[in-house]
Amino acid sequence: MLLEKINVWPDREDVFLQAYIQEDSSQISKGRRRPAVLVLPGGAYLFTSDREAEPVALRFAGLGYHAFVLRYSVFFGQGARSDNWSAASGPAPGNPHAAYPGPLFDLAKAMLIIREQADRWLLDPEQIALCGFSAGGHLAASLGVHWTDGFLKDHIQADNRFFRPAAMILGYPLTDCLNLSKEAERIKGKDITLIEYWHVFNLAVFHQPEPPDQVLADASPVLFVNQDTPPAFLWHTATDGLVPVAQSLDMAAAMSKMGIPCELHVFENGPHGLSLADAATAETPDQINEPAQAWFALARNWLNRHLPVLPAE
Amino acid sequence: MLLEKINVWPDREDVFLQAYIQEDSSQISKGRRRPAVLVLPGGAYLFTSDREAEPVALRFAGLGYHAFVLRYSVFFGQGARSDNWSAASGPAPGNPHAAYPGPLFDLAKAMLIIREQADRWLLDPEQIALCGFSAGGHLAASLGVHWTDGFLKDHIQADNRFFRPAAMILGYPLTDCLNLSKEAERIKGKDITLIEYWHVFNLAVFHQPEPPDQVLADASPVLFVNQDTPPAFLWHTATDGLVPVAQSLDMAAAMSKMGIPCELHVFENGPHGLSLADAATAETPDQINEPAQAWFALARNWLNRHLPVLPAE
Repeated sequence: MLLEKINVWPDREDVFLQAYIQEDSSQISKGRRRPAVLVLPGGAYLFTSDREAEPVALRFAGLGYHAFVLRYSVFFGQGARSDNWSAASGPAPGNPHAAYPGPLFDLAKAMLIIREQADRWLLDPEQIALCGFSAGGHLAASLGVHWTDGFLKDHIQADNRFFRPAAMILGYPLTDCLNLSKEAERIKGKDITLIEYWHVFNLAVFHQPEPPDQVLADASPVLFVNQDTPPAFLWHTATDGLVPVAQSLDMAAAMSKMGIPCELHVFENGPHGLSLADAATAETPDQINEPAQAWFALARNWLNRHLPVLPAE
Repeated sequence: MLLEKINVWPDREDVFLQAYIQEDSSQISKGRRRPAVLVLPGGAYLFTSDREAEPVALRFAGLGYHAFVLRYSVFFGQGARSDNWSAASGPAPGNPHAAYPGPLFDLAKAMLIIREQADRWLLDPEQIALCGFSAGGHLAASLGVHWTDGFLKDHIQADNRFFRPAAMILGYPLTDCLNLSKEAERIKGKDITLIEYWHVFNLAVFHQPEPPDQVLADASPVLFVNQDTPPAFLWHTATDGLVPVAQSLDMAAAMSKMGIPCELHVFENGPHGLSLADAATAETPDQINEPAQAWFALARNWLNRHLPVLPAE
């Protein structure tokens, strides 16, 4: 295995790809190119969660995929924690690059970088899947629906085809900022913590605590699903208290309506942010959830149909 | 993740540990020590198989274990292939360190080295499991039954407790050299390739093509199972044409008789050397075997009972 850390922008240290590259073996791959999975941790664009980063990449590496983690632009910086989000403890003002579509530029550029290294790594540039969690799922879905758009081409100065994800795995993703804001409105006065969290999230993503509907809609991938959107595997828990399960249900409905292949698994119970739902990513015992652990095996089977790792012969 | 390559003997390059170390995260492990799995690839002590090395280590790393691969002393050297075993193509004379108990010294010393680095790696020195395949299973089982023996202490010059494996996972292991030689006798004239293979194996392990029974018995871990032998998880295919399934059955019987915890899974069909039995380790399509793939999930559950990765809180 080859570990490489690559800065996405020459003049910035906070946005980088961590690569986990499979080395060729004359006894296994014999010079064959492999598919890849790029992991996008969540963290509400405030930070990027370690729990949804390397352990997930290692799980895919164990299946024979080249794996990557992208640490994209976030409001509080990479070292910050979810516990730090309150207005009192968070450094202010936050990172302006975290505002939408800043992280989407990071991701598009990262896709280009991976393709530039594809020959050296024996990586199939047409077989790069995204695996995003929560805000990382929002980011993955955003590229999935916008990779053909001119604003990415203009910003990165590269042809759109270099940004194309071949598939996307979305774990408890945020897909509809507009709908989420309505949900926040609905619970006003009932759940102060959650409201405050959403305000900080909105500050990070939109530079304002309560953005107008059009701004929220523009950053809602569920509204932009189109014929070029890649197949998706979605999973969520029905009792997610932070990103409602409707965010996945609506995405699946939008994809199905457009005729894009889509698989969805909703587990009955479990909090937001389970990641692998086992001890490899659990900070607390309630993050171990045996029924929800099944998502990875299901995703593996799905990925094996869309982007299989093939034997050499 | 931290990758380190450590030579087991200061004056030799051919015997080394490849370490895959989990880095501590304030969001996951929070300074907690982790258990470890040391992978021992097979290859009949003629070579060490890439197919039973890094991909397996990565699979355990994906579960949150520190992982290691030991490249131990082998007859033809690390770069050799199974295709090279015939007398015509193999370099001769082979590596004298490959002879029993040479590789066992390598393994005992490797256990000591891991324990010496345990603090730095946040590794629990009492929770080191072995995972060996074929000849690597023979090596693992040999340490399992001999770790308390004086000859290891004398050679390594360290207390026996530093060699103790906490558990062992044995994939299609060779456990009874004496019985294997009788099997070879039985099929004489029927399977020339297999006989020739066993002769080269015997040359590697015993410096003679047809060793006397006492020599074969001395290198048969099944005959040395004792109260200090750690719990074992064994798996095999019933149709293994190179190492008969009886080698696992007899080992399970010996352990059960001694009252040592033991789990065994025999899959109905499949050739020798399946490793993970999926595309991550397949050189040829017949090395993908869906029913046998189940061994890893079963081993994971077993390991989770004996050496669990625990959440920080």
